[in-house]
Amino acid sequence: MLGNEKLPDIQAEKPQSNYKLTRVGVTNVVKQIVVKRPNKTVFLTPTINLFVDLPATKKGSDMSRNIEIIEEIVEKSTMAPCSGIEELAENIVKLLIKKHTYASYAEIEMHADYFLERENPSGKRSQERYVLFSRAIMDHGTIRKMLGVKVTGITVCPCAMETVRSVLKDKYPDYAKFLNEIPVVSHNQRNNTTIMVEVPEGYSIEANDLIEIAENAMSSPTYEILKRKDEEEVVYRAHTNPKFVEDVVRDVLKQISKKYSNFPKDTLITVRSESEESIHKHNAFAERISTLGEILNNE
Amino acid sequence: MLGNEKLPDIQAEKPQSNYKLTRVGVTNVVKQIVVKRPNKTVFLTPTINLFVDLPATKKGSDMSRNIEIIEEIVEKSTMAPCSGIEELAENIVKLLIKKHTYASYAEIEMHADYFLERENPSGKRSQERYVLFSRAIMDHGTIRKMLGVKVTGITVCPCAMETVRSVLKDKYPDYAKFLNEIPVVSHNQRNNTTIMVEVPEGYSIEANDLIEIAENAMSSPTYEILKRKDEEEVVYRAHTNPKFVEDVVRDVLKQISKKYSNFPKDTLITVRSESEESIHKHNAFAERISTLGEILNNE
Amino acid sequence: MLGNEKLPDIQAEKPQSNYKLTRVGVTNVVKQIVVKRPNKTVFLTPTINLFVDLPATKKGSDMSRNIEIIEEIVEKSTMAPCSGIEELAENIVKLLIKKHTYASYAEIEMHADYFLERENPSGKRSQERYVLFSRAIMDHGTIRKMLGVKVTGITVCPCAMETVRSVLKDKYPDYAKFLNEIPVVSHNQRNNTTIMVEVPEGYSIEANDLIEIAENAMSSPTYEILKRKDEEEVVYRAHTNPKFVEDVVRDVLKQISKKYSNFPKDTLITVRSESEESIHKHNAFAERISTLGEILNNE
Amino acid sequence: MLGNEKLPDIQAEKPQSNYKLTRVGVTNVVKQIVVKRPNKTVFLTPTINLFVDLPATKKGSDMSRNIEIIEEIVEKSTMAPCSGIEELAENIVKLLIKKHTYASYAEIEMHADYFLERENPSGKRSQERYVLFSRAIMDHGTIRKMLGVKVTGITVCPCAMETVRSVLKDKYPDYAKFLNEIPVVSHNQRNNTTIMVEVPEGYSIEANDLIEIAENAMSSPTYEILKRKDEEEVVYRAHTNPKFVEDVVRDVLKQISKKYSNFPKDTLITVRSESEESIHKHNAFAERISTLGEILNNE
Repeated sequence: MLGNEKLPDIQAEKPQSNYKLTRVGVTNVVKQIVVKRPNKTVFLTPTINLFVDLPATKKGSDMSRNIEIIEEIVEKSTMAPCSGIEELAENIVKLLIKKHTYASYAEIEMHADYFLERENPSGKRSQERYVLFSRAIMDHGTIRKMLGVKVTGITVCPCAMETVRSVLKDKYPDYAKFLNEIPVVSHNQRNNTTIMVEVPEGYSIEANDLIEIAENAMSSPTYEILKRKDEEEVVYRAHTNPKFVEDVVRDVLKQISKKYSNFPKDTLITVRSESEESIHKHNAFAERISTLGEILNNE
Repeated sequence: MLGNEKLPDIQAEKPQSNYKLTRVGVTNVVKQIVVKRPNKTVFLTPTINLFVDLPATKKGSDMSRNIEIIEEIVEKSTMAPCSGIEELAENIVKLLIKKHTYASYAEIEMHADYFLERENPSGKRSQERYVLFSRAIMDHGTIRKMLGVKVTGITVCPCAMETVRSVLKDKYPDYAKFLNEIPVVSHNQRNNTTIMVEVPEGYSIEANDLIEIAENAMSSPTYEILKRKDEEEVVYRAHTNPKFVEDVVRDVLKQISKKYSNFPKDTLITVRSESEESIHKHNAFAERISTLGEILNNE
Repeated sequence: MLGNEKLPDIQAEKPQSNYKLTRVGVTNVVKQIVVKRPNKTVFLTPTINLFVDLPATKKGSDMSRNIEIIEEIVEKSTMAPCSGIEELAENIVKLLIKKHTYASYAEIEMHADYFLERENPSGKRSQERYVLFSRAIMDHGTIRKMLGVKVTGITVCPCAMETVRSVLKDKYPDYAKFLNEIPVVSHNQRNNTTIMVEVPEGYSIEANDLIEIAENAMSSPTYEILKRKDEEEVVYRAHTNPKFVEDVVRDVLKQISKKYSNFPKDTLITVRSESEESIHKHNAFAERISTLGEILNNE
Repeated sequence: MLGNEKLPDIQAEKPQSNYKLTRVGVTNVVKQIVVKRPNKTVFLTPTINLFVDLPATKKGSDMSRNIEIIEEIVEKSTMAPCSGIEELAENIVKLLIKKHTYASYAEIEMHADYFLERENPSGKRSQERYVLFSRAIMDHGTIRKMLGVKVTGITVCPCAMETVRSVLKDKYPDYAKFLNEIPVVSHNQRNNTTIMVEVPEGYSIEANDLIEIAENAMSSPTYEILKRKDEEEVVYRAHTNPKFVEDVVRDVLKQISKKYSNFPKDTLITVRSESEESIHKHNAFAERISTLGEILNNE
């Protein structure tokens, strides 16, 4: 029987058209891995896309190596868990460059559901769901890696609230002062806020800190369990803290500028906030892509 | 060259295991069709699943016939548009039974985006998006067909509103009477309500009526364009009309019992309402599946 | 400050319209849980929908209890893992009926990614991805529970293969005998096969057995890692075992009739197979819904 | 009653944190529009995302203007259809900059199902489904616009085919010559290929040409209706034309370099091909992002 070594190697042939390719790899790979966080072991089921570049002289990329690298990392993770999803991403791009000897560029993107215990207003604990992201790129020897989170919370519209307040004060002039004091009705909705921060060599970022920053920037975090009194407190708090998606992004930027002020100026930062508007069938969206330097300069 | 008639007919062979199959067919077929409604021509892009049963004696269903039937209907629809998506569904199950001579059961499910012009509170018009459903089943000669709609609107939670009102009245006892008069803050969110009604032989249902019933049952319809004054009116109206998902389903049932009271008692009715809760990461859901008879009896 | 006990209980009020509701609950709840299987501990991240019925006299269902039940089960699972996802479902419907004192019906549906180590043809191990399902219904005291799996593999079309063989034999009559001996080209594609089996009281089913049954019924299982020789073996094996979706469903039924022949005759069985046809933009689909009794009778 | 002019304008206020925002707007807007193509009228239902930037001095973007612009375009399109989806995109970014007087950047992305009649090998016609994309950016007065398509077809793996051929020749040495002549079995699968080309000012591109280029680059186009002889021809043709995703991307690049050789050198080109591997649970992916100049230089 023919073994691998005697079988034709079509990938190594010269292609018919001599173009290099920017990214060649595998997408939608789903694996279960173990990540060791400071105080606990975390089980993640990331969806993974990974790529290397391909020179003009090679017909095909050796794709099975990509999955071998992932399996190796998965197996290792069970025995000697790594310290974070961004470290995992970094380890994988290094292996990609090592195993694909023809490649000068390697990239990995991962996202996975992530759970934290949270206390609702009355102290009752529940498991809350978030999404972790990581991305690492190795380009001609230089590695850049990113850590990100997606957090779901609630936003209350400041514009509708002030418009309603104004109409109420016009209708009930005797209560104008009182109407300034209490929160008045507005529309509110589920909001998804995404933060992606570069983790420069020698620095570290905790995903849980990014989650806290996002939750602080919304009108309120949300909770899986709310008894009547809790529900009242979340609703009340959210209405004393109305936020446009624009406000959420800017509040995240402000917190990041304090928390990571010692990071290099060229650290890349992306912040996005999207509200599933309750009064429309479409969403409202705001985004800032910048370097930390621009944010520190109040740009 | 061999023609179709001389090629082997594998589908007609006897299968290795003698089990009949309940449904065999094609799924995720997407086509563009024309439907002539009373006052206008509607362009739909339905996603279609269709099936027939298969006797234990036949290895395979003749699947290409399913698509031929759809193409025939698509082509006809351009020249002589049919009067509704449920008539289309009925025509297709009849053709399925005719062309699959071995079948005693045929089924089709379709859903498609659907647009109506709506006036917002200040009279400004916008195109609003809905989903149309239809389903038809022909079983041993008997046809049952269903028409359905999915409508997106807003629901305001009555429970959180009364809890907040109660806390406000406790905190501001001097304003208790005023606090009874004005709407107070609550959580509100995007709600999707689905109505599916059987269309008995000799009766007809307008999809636009079902959409109106669903919009009437929510705290308020929503609109793509809302200037400040409109936004205030939608928010205010929704807060004077708070609704659980349970309330939405029951209000739809009540309207259906009036609108279609002359329909046969065994007419099947399904109503679902799902709110994308702004204070939770999960949804709230309510459903009633019943006959019109049960609804008319106030069960 | 007002406590929960003094806050208004809107859910307990009489509704405006007196209709009972079939199912009221929460959908799209995602949690991480621990399940203890015979030889290992499994971490699952199920998406959960759960419901109870609601009498005509009660305005709202007490939805926060649903999540409290899930959190309780999640917490318990960490300490004393349960033995299977269908046992989990059964425990939850019992708690639903207990905590929703007005309910006579409770239902839960769950699905979660699930991973098994598999050996490819040359013995290399990789983590393969499946989906687990479970469903439990408690109706007036009677519980029925179901366990299911979704398995991805490959199917090769028997019809196209024989048509091509016939054309090749016509073109190369001297090689007719040889062309009968070797597999000839056909279209093949990703296939998803779903098996859902009722687990009667006092009986048990292993999810891994259902996965094996589905993989045996396809043209071949698929693997994340395939070096050249492995790839050749999977392709070759699949082409010596061509299967319509109809064949896959019937082969699953046959295996089930042997494996679970001692189960009660009224055990419910659903088998579905869907091929993402490589030569079409739509899918091919086959399904059988029946009792074990019908299958044992070769119906 | 208060009119819009007397209501508070919260968006115009100064924000608490002085950061400019890169993109603010609306996402997931779905509308039905009419586009006049050379020989026919096309009905599209695009999903639309659109954005402008926001200076540090302004709290909120005037989001309702975004939808007003879309509604205006939708209404106009019914009366005086525009000539292409990329012209539509260009018109919209111009209006965005005009109506958002504070903005120096505007962007729109759209995608929509698109249908063409195609003849299968025996000349039978069917409606085939594609996806159209367009994107336009106006940045400090300069507009760049892109037109794109996503096309679904079939790819046959060249590597598995040669490995199988090699094993067959080893097993049947007497037939080695014949085995070189006929196509041998491999894995094949659904492939999605995306082409996005910049349309420079003064130049034009037909979406149908891009679709043809993508279909020519795959192992074969696919068809909704295939009788037995057609199916045999598509399978046979695909197996005489095996393609890696890498080959598909390079073949698209080659055709583009011929078809648009007179376009400016800095015209942006993105080509992606993704195969839903039938022998794996993950996908294979290849991509090239470049300028036309690089492609013309055979880089």
